Amino acid sequence: MFNPDCTRQPGPALEVPGNGGESPDRAELLHSKIKYWSVPMADYLAPLKQMRFTIEHLADFAEVGALPDFQSVDGDMVEAVLEEASKFATGVLASTNAIGDRQGVKVVGDGVEVPAEFTDAYGKFCEGGWPGIASNPDFGGQGLPKVLSIACDEMWAASNVAFALCPELSQGAILAMDRHGTEELKARFLEKLVSGQWSGTMCLTEAQAGSDLSSLTSRAEPKGDRYLISGQKIFITWGDHPMAENIVHLVLARLPDAPPGTKGISLFLVPKYKVNDDGSLGERNDNYCVSVEHKMGIHASPTCVMSFGDKGGAEGFLVGKPNEGLAAMFTMMNYMRLGVGIQGVGLADRSYQAAVAWARDRTQGRAPGEKGKVAIIRHPDVRRMLLAMRALTQASRAICYYTASCLDRAVHCADAEAAAMYDARADLLTPIAKAWTTEASLEVTSHGIQVHGGMGYVEETGVAQFYRDARIAPIYEGTNGIQAVDLVGRKLLRDGGATVSAFVSDMRAVDAPLANAGEQFAVVRSALARSLDELVECSTHILTGAKRDPELASAVAFNYLMLLGTVIGGWQLARGALVAEGELAAGGDKAFLDAQVVMARFYAEQVLPRCTAYAAAIRAGSGSTMALAADAF
Amino acid sequence: MFNPDCTRQPGPALEVPGNGGESPDRAELLHSKIKYWSVPMADYLAPLKQMRFTIEHLADFAEVGALPDFQSVDGDMVEAVLEEASKFATGVLASTNAIGDRQGVKVVGDGVEVPAEFTDAYGKFCEGGWPGIASNPDFGGQGLPKVLSIACDEMWAASNVAFALCPELSQGAILAMDRHGTEELKARFLEKLVSGQWSGTMCLTEAQAGSDLSSLTSRAEPKGDRYLISGQKIFITWGDHPMAENIVHLVLARLPDAPPGTKGISLFLVPKYKVNDDGSLGERNDNYCVSVEHKMGIHASPTCVMSFGDKGGAEGFLVGKPNEGLAAMFTMMNYMRLGVGIQGVGLADRSYQAAVAWARDRTQGRAPGEKGKVAIIRHPDVRRMLLAMRALTQASRAICYYTASCLDRAVHCADAEAAAMYDARADLLTPIAKAWTTEASLEVTSHGIQVHGGMGYVEETGVAQFYRDARIAPIYEGTNGIQAVDLVGRKLLRDGGATVSAFVSDMRAVDAPLANAGEQFAVVRSALARSLDELVECSTHILTGAKRDPELASAVAFNYLMLLGTVIGGWQLARGALVAEGELAAGGDKAFLDAQVVMARFYAEQVLPRCTAYAAAIRAGSGSTMALAADAF
Repeated sequence: MFNPDCTRQPGPALEVPGNGGESPDRAELLHSKIKYWSVPMADYLAPLKQMRFTIEHLADFAEVGALPDFQSVDGDMVEAVLEEASKFATGVLASTNAIGDRQGVKVVGDGVEVPAEFTDAYGKFCEGGWPGIASNPDFGGQGLPKVLSIACDEMWAASNVAFALCPELSQGAILAMDRHGTEELKARFLEKLVSGQWSGTMCLTEAQAGSDLSSLTSRAEPKGDRYLISGQKIFITWGDHPMAENIVHLVLARLPDAPPGTKGISLFLVPKYKVNDDGSLGERNDNYCVSVEHKMGIHASPTCVMSFGDKGGAEGFLVGKPNEGLAAMFTMMNYMRLGVGIQGVGLADRSYQAAVAWARDRTQGRAPGEKGKVAIIRHPDVRRMLLAMRALTQASRAICYYTASCLDRAVHCADAEAAAMYDARADLLTPIAKAWTTEASLEVTSHGIQVHGGMGYVEETGVAQFYRDARIAPIYEGTNGIQAVDLVGRKLLRDGGATVSAFVSDMRAVDAPLANAGEQFAVVRSALARSLDELVECSTHILTGAKRDPELASAVAFNYLMLLGTVIGGWQLARGALVAEGELAAGGDKAFLDAQVVMARFYAEQVLPRCTAYAAAIRAGSGSTMALAADAF
Repeated sequence: MFNPDCTRQPGPALEVPGNGGESPDRAELLHSKIKYWSVPMADYLAPLKQMRFTIEHLADFAEVGALPDFQSVDGDMVEAVLEEASKFATGVLASTNAIGDRQGVKVVGDGVEVPAEFTDAYGKFCEGGWPGIASNPDFGGQGLPKVLSIACDEMWAASNVAFALCPELSQGAILAMDRHGTEELKARFLEKLVSGQWSGTMCLTEAQAGSDLSSLTSRAEPKGDRYLISGQKIFITWGDHPMAENIVHLVLARLPDAPPGTKGISLFLVPKYKVNDDGSLGERNDNYCVSVEHKMGIHASPTCVMSFGDKGGAEGFLVGKPNEGLAAMFTMMNYMRLGVGIQGVGLADRSYQAAVAWARDRTQGRAPGEKGKVAIIRHPDVRRMLLAMRALTQASRAICYYTASCLDRAVHCADAEAAAMYDARADLLTPIAKAWTTEASLEVTSHGIQVHGGMGYVEETGVAQFYRDARIAPIYEGTNGIQAVDLVGRKLLRDGGATVSAFVSDMRAVDAPLANAGEQFAVVRSALARSLDELVECSTHILTGAKRDPELASAVAFNYLMLLGTVIGGWQLARGALVAEGELAAGGDKAFLDAQVVMARFYAEQVLPRCTAYAAAIRAGSGSTMALAADAF
């Protein structure tokens, strides 16, 4: 009998579209016979040790903690926050994930219905003070650094990414308003957003204006000190739901006298319910969710078509200056981009954990030097997949946390020069934290299915959901192609490669310690040095070639983003291995530290060589990419 | 207004799991406003010109057509068969694909219900004679070569892969029975399988025996000249359905005196309804579908748990010799592996067509040298994705068709030496045709979503289904990891590299014509030569190293498979480009032929460089892969 010790009962019948149930008289037979359904999905366990290691050693936590604004943040606090977040993620959120996937959301009457378990979890989330941990203390936030709160974001995403999107968007809205809103607006709205009592959204996209925001047509008519907003927005995440008492939409629209294109777009705050001067809720405002999308994943995150002003105009407030809405919105957007990256990390880690649990448990086949059947984790090809999953996940996590740490330093460094340096580096890293990690999450969650064999394709197993949920991340908040063009156009070309060069110099600094660390690190050292050379060569190639060929930058941008992300990941894992080597010598946790060294080597052997392929594609330029006429495809 | 000319009406409300509908009073508003739903999914158009080109120039059709068994098969017949198949795929099958995805299948009473449209389509499929086009004429088949019928298989998969699995499995069952069944058995069963009146299945997997068939426990007790089969089989594709009058299961089970392991497995034919001596249907046999899986994709293909012998034993017949069932089953399995590969090709091509149509139609942003907004097919990064889709799809198609052509020659060559050579080559190619192409299909269908942006993630668009449907292909009929181990263990190591070397020599023969074809082919020539060098070096590395390191072969197998597949794809596109160059000079279809040259160059620039990464991972060996203890993951 296969795996007789696992006794999970089959759950309630699933309502999976396009799949049947079983007839009642067959169900008993089924449940008595099908042993392979009795393997429970591994519970999510936050990888706290790996997270702390990443925060401390790969995201320069000591530098962040030394900043005046973060004097109270020390190692003990990091540990306490992560522990508590882990309890919430594991104990409350994780169990709602499959429910949300099966049950989804729907429009009922004037609003969107979500699973009752979500509303319950959201209440507990707010009670725990989680919405405001990184927000401005002036409005009730706890003002923790992003390098710490991002680890919490990872846990929310790993345990239930559809749920996590709601507070994530609120965070972005808070940040945009905090930076661009008037004092009066902040006083009226911010505290309740920070507490989670109200939630926030980002209303950019229109049917004809997806990646191309210059085509926006939503309008805003002045009316006293306010505006009447009208237009239709699509793809509005958590655009409506009953979990919060009010919803604060940040909406891009055009004033009557606005110039065309991106220079005529303003940002407006449009609440679901109007807010009286005393802060109490007034009448329903004129904005409604008219439908929700039927998506491949994140079923429990309502993706709304929002209609503003069907009954005469939705009352709103201007945020920031007229016609400068895009810049204000980008405060939120850049924040969200890092947030999307961490979604990829969370899903990748969750899929990895499920795959490891399955691979330890499932016995199939034999192995050299072993008697009898072995668990499949013994098979080299299964290990290859698990190690690739782990290596890519660790690299993704390190990239995202490090980006957060650069953001913290950019905002909170007293030294203007250092702040500017970290600001430029965070700008450089944001598209990579968004795009490279979400590309990695597709690969990782695909491996997660593959390790499970046929069971991975069956929805009850759970890993298919991670794969489906992950697929949106390369698309929203700017497609990964847009990220790549942003990286090459604004971050490489605009300053003539200065920011990239500075970063390369920092990464090269790991070479000497690797050389000193001995033969064990030779593979890591040579692979990283080679990849850095390729990065430098390709950067130069683009900087030089873009002047001659206007298509070059866009044609090679994606490969350049993948190249740069892959190198940074290798640098981070190499740094981790060096730290681990030092801690091993000092008598640290051997299994954990050894694994850091193995992961750096595996990454150097099996992931860094991809740089050569990216570099070759970059050197090839735009010729064959642009060769075909549109009708020859 | 966005794309006002497209006036597709929104279809019926979808029953998508975990997603809502809209309230009736909102629906009208929705449909009047949402213009982006009005872009119709491009109809499937079989790429007939590319198929004929591949059959004729990349799959050595002239050699196959010259074989005595295929004297009647000429270019006119190829054209006629493809045209007719294309009409069926486009006119009948394609429209059932989304219906099947939404509606799915379910167990009702003693059997499985499928969409009525499927039963209707299956009837037409049989009327058209499609089930038997490649089957033995002695039993009513048309005896066409596989190199031609595989193009039809591609069209079935592209238009509706869930449907296509049913006749595909019948084909495998026919082949196994034709080769291993007694004359009496063939007389009783084959003709109705060939006509499609009955369908076939392959019953291998049990809960405890997935990739590891040696663990099978199903039993067969002799009873007169027949056997009573009992046991439970899982993952039985099209295990029950009402489209055919009877279902013929080929079941692996153990005789009472069978030795343990793989040498004690026999193959049995077990019909759903017993068959009287006059060929009429008798009483219901003791085998039932007890449930169907809830899967991420191929919703309309019933994946059944089949229970044999709950009421005393399912009557069956021995196929082939006792205890040699695995070898007999592998006749079917190898056939199915190529069939899975072509599923990948079909889905990839369908996704490519949808992405091209979208990219031509959707306008977003501007481009250098163009006035006003442009269709996104103008953007280099969108082209990068479309070209990668096309390059990988063309390479996959060429690999599968060439494998089919080798199979034709292996079976039908009068010359024993030539037959043996093609048999060895088909053996070598089968795991690549299965695994490389299905890995490619994941990448291609993922790009297909990405090109659509947010709309790609919305189920109504249709490309998400291709991505979900494609994800099973790397798993079933032997996971891609199993294919890789098969490739390295049985196809590379077993003959000391002889088959690979012979193939490499053939591939190198393209170098001289490339050199003669001039500067335009220099990139293709050098990239291919370099990749072939890497292939040879890695083959040697494995042949040498496997003697010392028992884990090496399995640890590097997957990367070796990807390396070999990538090289073969590059060789095929290079051949195609040379042919195109010749036909251009002779005044052929310029747009089509130019595109062949561009695709070869794009592949050489952007796909072949991956070989370097695969080779590096192979050279790294098994060290870091095997380093971690199971509990250190």
